[in-house]
Amino acid sequence: MQHTFRLIIDCPDQIGLVASVSQFLADHQATIVEASHHTDQQTGRFFMRHEIGTDKLALDHQQFVEAFTPLAEQYDMQWKLTDSARKQRVALLASLDSHCLVDLLHRWHTQELYCDIPCIIANHPQLKQFADWYKVPFHWVNFKGQSKEQAFAQIATILDEYQVDLTVLARFMQILPDTLCRQWLGRAINIHHSFLPSFAGARPYQQAYDRGVKLIGATCHYVTRDLDEGPIIEQAVKRISHSDTAQDMVRKGKDCEVTALAHGVRYHLEDRVIIHRNKTVVFA
Amino acid sequence: MQHTFRLIIDCPDQIGLVASVSQFLADHQATIVEASHHTDQQTGRFFMRHEIGTDKLALDHQQFVEAFTPLAEQYDMQWKLTDSARKQRVALLASLDSHCLVDLLHRWHTQELYCDIPCIIANHPQLKQFADWYKVPFHWVNFKGQSKEQAFAQIATILDEYQVDLTVLARFMQILPDTLCRQWLGRAINIHHSFLPSFAGARPYQQAYDRGVKLIGATCHYVTRDLDEGPIIEQAVKRISHSDTAQDMVRKGKDCEVTALAHGVRYHLEDRVIIHRNKTVVFA
Amino acid sequence: MQHTFRLIIDCPDQIGLVASVSQFLADHQATIVEASHHTDQQTGRFFMRHEIGTDKLALDHQQFVEAFTPLAEQYDMQWKLTDSARKQRVALLASLDSHCLVDLLHRWHTQELYCDIPCIIANHPQLKQFADWYKVPFHWVNFKGQSKEQAFAQIATILDEYQVDLTVLARFMQILPDTLCRQWLGRAINIHHSFLPSFAGARPYQQAYDRGVKLIGATCHYVTRDLDEGPIIEQAVKRISHSDTAQDMVRKGKDCEVTALAHGVRYHLEDRVIIHRNKTVVFA
Amino acid sequence: MQHTFRLIIDCPDQIGLVASVSQFLADHQATIVEASHHTDQQTGRFFMRHEIGTDKLALDHQQFVEAFTPLAEQYDMQWKLTDSARKQRVALLASLDSHCLVDLLHRWHTQELYCDIPCIIANHPQLKQFADWYKVPFHWVNFKGQSKEQAFAQIATILDEYQVDLTVLARFMQILPDTLCRQWLGRAINIHHSFLPSFAGARPYQQAYDRGVKLIGATCHYVTRDLDEGPIIEQAVKRISHSDTAQDMVRKGKDCEVTALAHGVRYHLEDRVIIHRNKTVVFA
Repeated sequence: MQHTFRLIIDCPDQIGLVASVSQFLADHQATIVEASHHTDQQTGRFFMRHEIGTDKLALDHQQFVEAFTPLAEQYDMQWKLTDSARKQRVALLASLDSHCLVDLLHRWHTQELYCDIPCIIANHPQLKQFADWYKVPFHWVNFKGQSKEQAFAQIATILDEYQVDLTVLARFMQILPDTLCRQWLGRAINIHHSFLPSFAGARPYQQAYDRGVKLIGATCHYVTRDLDEGPIIEQAVKRISHSDTAQDMVRKGKDCEVTALAHGVRYHLEDRVIIHRNKTVVFA
Repeated sequence: MQHTFRLIIDCPDQIGLVASVSQFLADHQATIVEASHHTDQQTGRFFMRHEIGTDKLALDHQQFVEAFTPLAEQYDMQWKLTDSARKQRVALLASLDSHCLVDLLHRWHTQELYCDIPCIIANHPQLKQFADWYKVPFHWVNFKGQSKEQAFAQIATILDEYQVDLTVLARFMQILPDTLCRQWLGRAINIHHSFLPSFAGARPYQQAYDRGVKLIGATCHYVTRDLDEGPIIEQAVKRISHSDTAQDMVRKGKDCEVTALAHGVRYHLEDRVIIHRNKTVVFA
Repeated sequence: MQHTFRLIIDCPDQIGLVASVSQFLADHQATIVEASHHTDQQTGRFFMRHEIGTDKLALDHQQFVEAFTPLAEQYDMQWKLTDSARKQRVALLASLDSHCLVDLLHRWHTQELYCDIPCIIANHPQLKQFADWYKVPFHWVNFKGQSKEQAFAQIATILDEYQVDLTVLARFMQILPDTLCRQWLGRAINIHHSFLPSFAGARPYQQAYDRGVKLIGATCHYVTRDLDEGPIIEQAVKRISHSDTAQDMVRKGKDCEVTALAHGVRYHLEDRVIIHRNKTVVFA
Repeated sequence: MQHTFRLIIDCPDQIGLVASVSQFLADHQATIVEASHHTDQQTGRFFMRHEIGTDKLALDHQQFVEAFTPLAEQYDMQWKLTDSARKQRVALLASLDSHCLVDLLHRWHTQELYCDIPCIIANHPQLKQFADWYKVPFHWVNFKGQSKEQAFAQIATILDEYQVDLTVLARFMQILPDTLCRQWLGRAINIHHSFLPSFAGARPYQQAYDRGVKLIGATCHYVTRDLDEGPIIEQAVKRISHSDTAQDMVRKGKDCEVTALAHGVRYHLEDRVIIHRNKTVVFA
């Protein structure tokens, strides 16, 4: 994997902006591996992602940040410079279903997903086996015998201890409290087992069965206070028919869940997602 | 096109049913071109469609119906026997958008859709040109200058005069009154420009844009009193991204609308759709 | 899971055939859970699959076979009656890539795939870890230091010892000798990493990259003597663009490989696939 | 539709290039509506497309070209500046099948495709009716009674007279002679009715049927001397099953052909396609 810096910019659109950034990059011998631009015509907001090869680059990370700051201030940017070599620390939260968890673990294990997975947390003990196989610490937070508040406080503590960058709800079947939603804004990704906004809430496959749709799907989105209403990163669908029972849909839908979540997490880890209001720009 | 009868059966499931029907067919030298079965495990309802070659068949249509009636009564069937040679009479209702209308006309013209199109009705005069090209009588029912009730009464009269079997709402932008919905139950097909149940109601692409979904779609369904809630026949989706405006979605979605509607109409005309409660069995 | 027998029939089409089979089933109180028919119009061959609930059935497996045999002979059937409770014994062959192997193991572990996996064989030792986790005996057959013939003889011996019903080549990168292809006809499934017949042979993603296609895919097929030419069971594709390197295609294609193979194996295990000449009937 | 210039650049990659272009644009008050970049890592070639709003732009088209030329020379660019208001002149070539022709005509008529269609040429007279409806001159070039060479000379003359920019082979079933292929390089688009490279040549659906594939498709590509081997612009596929006859595939495949061709033509007309060796960069 080539070593790169990723320069992510989110600012008001204006003439000269791209020129200034490009000039800055050229002045410091940055090779542009990948460049993506988007202007939201409705809000006049501009988004830019550069993946910059570091081999000829005259600046290290800190120098880049320092040198770039005046420009960023001039254009009123929200921005960040990330280092492709730095592994984000990703916690996986799960319940009983193993398909998303195991898929993410395998992609991480084979280095398809470039990150660290310091811990797995679940509200049931059954998935411990998979954590053990992949040698990832497993924390069972029992939601019975304590209040939901207490249980989530326990989870928050664990995540803090592991200094987690991103929390992935890999079919974690507990609704996060508002405080955590706010605290993890933009740093918690969920997979919902329907093509949202259809079938938000509980038992989406049963809802889909009852409604008689001809497609089922899954939605990977950021967690927000409004359940199943957060910014969507990725969606996948699959054709079904009258001969599929709700049970068949559960089975078939898993393939959608697995791929939508894996793509969403990948995009996030590669700094390809920018949240804009309640939507996302995804430089896929 | 091979001449066939289509035997459509909808009845309580029970042992011996298929044997009796198959034996009846064998007794009368019916060649089975296509056979489809489905049991709804939840309701215990059984659905069967046979496409029967008539070349060796010992019965004509009326004789078949008479001979089969006792069996149908014994098993408490809702059933019909249709003749593939009989063209259903399909009225097209439209407004201003031409893509679905023109697509259906072309498929009809090239005999991909086997039916008659005795008339086109629209609440705007602009699409007359296409009707003229295809030599189909065009009726402009002006919704301005009269009550909605009166306008729909006018439409109902026209459809009656043409002895229409099926009414297709090819992006017809007026909501049908309850009386017509009831009267046309199972004989009126609509195309809605979203993957229902997402974005029911007005301006679905704008809704999709505002929600930031990554897929848009279209839904072909039977018209019922509850707007956009009727039994779904077919759905299609298409991937979009943040770079698509609501306007782009309108354009891209048309391909979904066109194919979902064309498939739905085709399935209906070939007697492949059975409505069961608020869902469909589609022997595609 | 409901206990069923699966009656699979492949014979010349003729009037009375379905009636006879249906009558036989009714006579013995068979509940038909699922019934599928297909006539190949070109060859006049008829294919039928019945999934039969055994709860009311008056015959056990052996009695069914005995009772049905005269009928089968009368209609010159190739046929079998399988028992859904009997787990087929499936050997997995792999090399270095783990995605298909791990996916199948997980689906088996969670009982999505109903079978036994008595052994994993690989021509490299690296994947042993996964076999160990799932507690499946792992056999490393080293293709270096012995002839290809000897190595395959070793594999054949292992498969015989485990009394394997089905061999799945889960990205096993060795070409099977003719003798084994013949011996395993209809009992060996491969996943090829292209949408065949495009890019048969070696390095299909590189071939796809060089040709500049806009879709990549995977093909699940039965192994035959003619490499990558066997009957196709399932195919999957994925959209790519000019910005994808051959390396990206390798990564993205894995999702196609995994799902196409999993579906193909599932169809086979549920007796949904009938090979007809060099094609398949798949009652999915 | 917003008035824009489209600046298309194809040159060796080097540091400073984007900065120079961006600075040029900023210096002349260009609003960047859309910007796309791609570097071919294998060949070190850089591709850039800018869609530039002209409302504030200080240069008209000729001035822009003159002002930009020194920069273009400095960086050894192949480049062009097109005007979104200028309609390209597109000739449609067809034979007997009407679906692609009628679809393109409708998209043009409704201004979804922004171009002129000065003429339709066919080697059969049957499609004249559609040309008449859309008031486009129709030329029947009879391939019987003259040599193929003469017939194509006649076509070339017609295209010259109409000063055609782009020739679209909308299911035109004659193989172009080498001289025309060379002459129209990059200016002739074909739709082939398979997912190339599978089933190149004649009767691809029959080939697909014989091979027993589970997906059929269509490929939109530039015409080159090597039949069905030109740079691919777009591909589409559709799932089929054993129950589809070759005839069904012909019917189902039409939807793929129509959309793949319409997309390909649209991309070309919007200057989104750059040919690089035998592949395309498509800034979709």
